Amino acid sequence: MSRVATGESVIARAVRIVEAFGLDDPSLTIGEIARRAGLHVATASRMVEELVQAGWLERSGREVRIGIRLWELSTRASPVMGLRAAALPFMEDLHQVIGNDTQLAVLDGTEVLFLERLWSPGPVVNYSRIAGRLPVHASSSGLVLLAHAAHDVQQSVMDAPMKGYTDQTIQTGAELRAMLAHIRREGYALCAGHIYPDTTGIAAPIRDGRGTVVAALGIIAPNDTAAYSKIPAVQAAARGISRVMTHVRGPRQ
Amino acid sequence: MSRVATGESVIARAVRIVEAFGLDDPSLTIGEIARRAGLHVATASRMVEELVQAGWLERSGREVRIGIRLWELSTRASPVMGLRAAALPFMEDLHQVIGNDTQLAVLDGTEVLFLERLWSPGPVVNYSRIAGRLPVHASSSGLVLLAHAAHDVQQSVMDAPMKGYTDQTIQTGAELRAMLAHIRREGYALCAGHIYPDTTGIAAPIRDGRGTVVAALGIIAPNDTAAYSKIPAVQAAARGISRVMTHVRGPRQ
Repeated sequence: MSRVATGESVIARAVRIVEAFGLDDPSLTIGEIARRAGLHVATASRMVEELVQAGWLERSGREVRIGIRLWELSTRASPVMGLRAAALPFMEDLHQVIGNDTQLAVLDGTEVLFLERLWSPGPVVNYSRIAGRLPVHASSSGLVLLAHAAHDVQQSVMDAPMKGYTDQTIQTGAELRAMLAHIRREGYALCAGHIYPDTTGIAAPIRDGRGTVVAALGIIAPNDTAAYSKIPAVQAAARGISRVMTHVRGPRQ
Repeated sequence: MSRVATGESVIARAVRIVEAFGLDDPSLTIGEIARRAGLHVATASRMVEELVQAGWLERSGREVRIGIRLWELSTRASPVMGLRAAALPFMEDLHQVIGNDTQLAVLDGTEVLFLERLWSPGPVVNYSRIAGRLPVHASSSGLVLLAHAAHDVQQSVMDAPMKGYTDQTIQTGAELRAMLAHIRREGYALCAGHIYPDTTGIAAPIRDGRGTVVAALGIIAPNDTAAYSKIPAVQAAARGISRVMTHVRGPRQ
């Protein structure tokens, strides 16, 4: 086996190749991969071939895609699977009862990462997608997670520009501080029209066995007064998941 | 940037490091990773460090785990996500109506890979897990997929030893051929006690827009006569998913 003096950059390049794929780009040509990863086409081609051999990428004609083996590996040993397994039955019940999009989110840096989502047919717009991200200041799930995050995470969100999606989006530190205090006091976040004028996000915290907030459960409802009546159901489902989480090792613990 | 003359083996080693993690081993020490990947501890340690930098692995004290970033990358661009998104609403409905474990599976080589599962509380034993595998000859979902697979895949299953789980498990080529013909004729598989004496697996094929079988929808019910009454609901849900799949790019297409 050869020495690993060049290992660092090979791994870094392999990472860039896999990270070239995205929600809107599930399949790419070698040329596109090379351009996105900043590699020569010959280098990209050789490394893609190796990743195809490993089953991490799949090739069909000129198109390269993420391989089912990489999904399998990362899913079966993922730290989020225990949380997801605990949450899904409660999400199903909530989804059936409420009838709105229901989603599970965790904090990653200063963004909210959506782990799972049950869709509803209908006209409600929802920006979140499974394995998609949103800035924490804009999403009800993100705000719930931020309300219980470390002080330095809260500070770095306040120090950065907060993108406005509508005129309801939180965009100042004062508004954000008031919202976080409200969430800690009331136990939920309700964001009417913060991302899209016609939708309301409602979210509540999920805690692990030690009482630490590890995730948020949320729904996306039409932006009308009926949204308020859905808060208790979201909170109750989040508490149900928290009860199960007492026995589950959570993510990032 | 250094030359990639040694790239092959670096990627191969990185793959072995990530593949060291499994359903039953979500966290490992560096020493365990080195042993499983067949690497020196110093090499494993250096490569783990790089993969941690990329967010593909996470370290907490001495324990190393699959990073949330690898799950995110492989999920958001995965070829199975379109299928999963199409299937999940029908799976939820079937799960609510039938009340048994409901699962979605694809064929990978001569094994069945479970993409999704909705659990039921209760005493029914189910060997399948999300991102878990079973041999095709033993599982109802596997048999449905095999019934519609290429001849050489069927032949390689018949040529290999078929592990017996119970005295009902299919273990001969003649039994397997008869079962596959039955499945193609009737449009479903029912396996009573093939893996565990007290459970029955029922599965039906999911087709893409061109009529090709790309997945199987299955339930795991108690092994009693009531199981037969559940066949139509499984078939109808599988047809519903197939209808949606007309508009979705399937896995491995």
